[in-house]
Amino acid sequence: MGATETLARFILNTPTEAIPAPILHEGKRCIINYMAVALYASADPSAEILTGLFEEEGGTASASLIGVGGRTNLQNAALANGYLAHLEDYDDTHFPTVIHPSAPTIPAAMAVAEREGATGLDVLAATVLGVEACCRVGLSVYPNHYDAGWHITGTCGVFGAAGAAGRLLGLDELQMTYALGIAGTQAAGVREVFGSMSKPFHAGRAAQSGVLAGLLARRGFTSTREILEGRRGFAAVLSTASDMEQISDGLGERWELPNNGLKPFSCGVVSHPLIDAMIALRNEHGVSADDVVSVGARVHPLVLELMDRPNPRVGLEGKFSHQHSMAVGLIDGGAFPAQYTDDRVLDPAVAALRDKIRATVDDSVAEDACEVTVTLRDGRTVSESVTHATGAPENPMSDAMLERKFRTLAHRVLSEAQADELLATLWSLDTVDDVSGVMALTQG
Amino acid sequence: MGATETLARFILNTPTEAIPAPILHEGKRCIINYMAVALYASADPSAEILTGLFEEEGGTASASLIGVGGRTNLQNAALANGYLAHLEDYDDTHFPTVIHPSAPTIPAAMAVAEREGATGLDVLAATVLGVEACCRVGLSVYPNHYDAGWHITGTCGVFGAAGAAGRLLGLDELQMTYALGIAGTQAAGVREVFGSMSKPFHAGRAAQSGVLAGLLARRGFTSTREILEGRRGFAAVLSTASDMEQISDGLGERWELPNNGLKPFSCGVVSHPLIDAMIALRNEHGVSADDVVSVGARVHPLVLELMDRPNPRVGLEGKFSHQHSMAVGLIDGGAFPAQYTDDRVLDPAVAALRDKIRATVDDSVAEDACEVTVTLRDGRTVSESVTHATGAPENPMSDAMLERKFRTLAHRVLSEAQADELLATLWSLDTVDDVSGVMALTQG
Repeated sequence: MGATETLARFILNTPTEAIPAPILHEGKRCIINYMAVALYASADPSAEILTGLFEEEGGTASASLIGVGGRTNLQNAALANGYLAHLEDYDDTHFPTVIHPSAPTIPAAMAVAEREGATGLDVLAATVLGVEACCRVGLSVYPNHYDAGWHITGTCGVFGAAGAAGRLLGLDELQMTYALGIAGTQAAGVREVFGSMSKPFHAGRAAQSGVLAGLLARRGFTSTREILEGRRGFAAVLSTASDMEQISDGLGERWELPNNGLKPFSCGVVSHPLIDAMIALRNEHGVSADDVVSVGARVHPLVLELMDRPNPRVGLEGKFSHQHSMAVGLIDGGAFPAQYTDDRVLDPAVAALRDKIRATVDDSVAEDACEVTVTLRDGRTVSESVTHATGAPENPMSDAMLERKFRTLAHRVLSEAQADELLATLWSLDTVDDVSGVMALTQG
Repeated sequence: MGATETLARFILNTPTEAIPAPILHEGKRCIINYMAVALYASADPSAEILTGLFEEEGGTASASLIGVGGRTNLQNAALANGYLAHLEDYDDTHFPTVIHPSAPTIPAAMAVAEREGATGLDVLAATVLGVEACCRVGLSVYPNHYDAGWHITGTCGVFGAAGAAGRLLGLDELQMTYALGIAGTQAAGVREVFGSMSKPFHAGRAAQSGVLAGLLARRGFTSTREILEGRRGFAAVLSTASDMEQISDGLGERWELPNNGLKPFSCGVVSHPLIDAMIALRNEHGVSADDVVSVGARVHPLVLELMDRPNPRVGLEGKFSHQHSMAVGLIDGGAFPAQYTDDRVLDPAVAALRDKIRATVDDSVAEDACEVTVTLRDGRTVSESVTHATGAPENPMSDAMLERKFRTLAHRVLSEAQADELLATLWSLDTVDDVSGVMALTQG
């Protein structure tokens, strides 16, 4: 049996009970994290572009738009919620492939589940299996596929979305195989559009393409049975090298979700260990910005390659400035969306601290590690080492940290009581009879 | 100025009066041909999959579904009409790139035009400019892009669709540049799905992606300004080699439409010279199947590589059998959809004639040429040479032949009077005040 049919059967035939409890729990954390970032992003002005489009184009009111309110059809809901989930670059990362798997997968699952009145446990299982499919496909073509310029979240995301949607739609094996085919032949998204709304659009469009694939397949639409491994299929056409063993090897025994980290900070991931260090210096060593004469850091080479911006001028540039991220880590004790506004990057106190920061590349420092040494006015130096940054697979965000993230972000559009109710419901998602009630709680 | 902005300005700023009359006429022929094949395909059972989906998902009734009746939103109409236009492999071919440019471009133009109440001349201009954009992008990446396994109609089609839709939506230059970006980052479709409904789906999805790109750009959605030429853009990511000069060279002076041939027969294009020869033997030399002892043909190598199927068992296989195509050419005097039904390929008289046909590769024979020699019962031999097959750029279908094709195909769903009225209206499309009236005539 080929890779595509193997994956289709795995998605369909894995009983929910066969998914280990810690994996289901991680799936739940992904859903909570997904809701948090989508709720926050729903207040972004660009959300109105999508809701305006949906008003213009119409659609049966079947699935909810997170935060912005109202319901639309399955494809529109998947598009918008996937867009919102990725807009702030604050979702999650499958470290081995740099896929952000939740943003394309969960909106597809949720849209179908809401209309079909699926249980919370069904959604959890579909999410876990969709993420697994998405990441497995990613592993089969990484790194060549990514290095070629593809936004791997968009391209591989369609498989997660189609898998999750297809399971909840009750497809049979051939339909699921075709759904993966219909989805895979829509795989798209190039990195040239990074820095524009078209980047999060990739996640939304992937979610929508997966839903469309599932809906079409259920009605008898045909495709190939070998979208992944075929001679003119996904891997052959979109990558210069591939390894189909990555799809089937240990499927159902080894899971990819533990390699997926929820992002604790809303900025480039290579600065996360530095932020951890600055927060520790602030909270554990009592260092305040006024005391600081200079800050030295030993870092992985990627920090300077990707995030060396001493003087960011707008919030988006701040997200890719390790100096800014470190400064707000010390001053504010965090690096959340509030730390990456245009106002915050122009704040004189933040700018003054940024100027005191010097990072030095050290090839022996791992990508999720760093060492920071602060020299104080009284002549003392204080150092902090980070071995694994928060959010890395070896140091995942705790449930308590995720709760804080959820509350901070959700409060942008929900009252405290609403956010509390939604959070409590999501923590007990596996006991929910009908997820449409959950989605009703996401309305601001 | 880069290739993308050059193309965006060309699409927007070319006055209709600056398009040469023969090019506009060719655009009109493309629209007539498009309507003919979409009308015929609208009776295919798979059309109900799409109309069923649209009923399920809903949509504002703004644009007509050709043949199947009813109106839906712009994106759905573009998807369905693009699918129908390509379903029978009977549309048109831009010979230098093997793009089928009408199927993704015209449905996008028509959907927007119908809602906006655009004039027929506006639609004609948008079609011509969209096809030009689509083919120019194709030229910039052909043949590497195609050889890699991409279905070039789907991938390059998004630019034709976005260009045509964007012009009719009245985008400004930046919006059009972004529309091309949003469209280009949706470019998709691999050849692995050939032989399934997912192949014509590529044309429909490209049309829809282009419409979506236009609608989003008009509302302020952002993208890159360099989707074509950027370091991580369309050409770099989807092709191993590219030539951006092909986009801008002689733009507005040299047109690609004359290199686009309307298909006279509903089967693989490499068999078309053979069908021409058989029809001439029948109609000009009076040869009948009963007289034939054997048929010999000298052919281009691709004929045997792509279409050597002496015993097709279903209609679809017949479309890729040169023996079947030649046999029906002699017996029926044509190779239309009626010649590629399951019944027709199983007909004993057709099968008997197929068995008498032997083709021999001759490297000196051009792709659109052949020589056929028939040996008759009375001992005579009759030969017929074809230099340029009907439908090739050097030997385009005449307007009269196109009319016959239109009537033959349209009659599947329209009465003779309805087909006549639609055809007459399309021939005078440049004088139509509001194309929504034209689309009303496509309802069976």
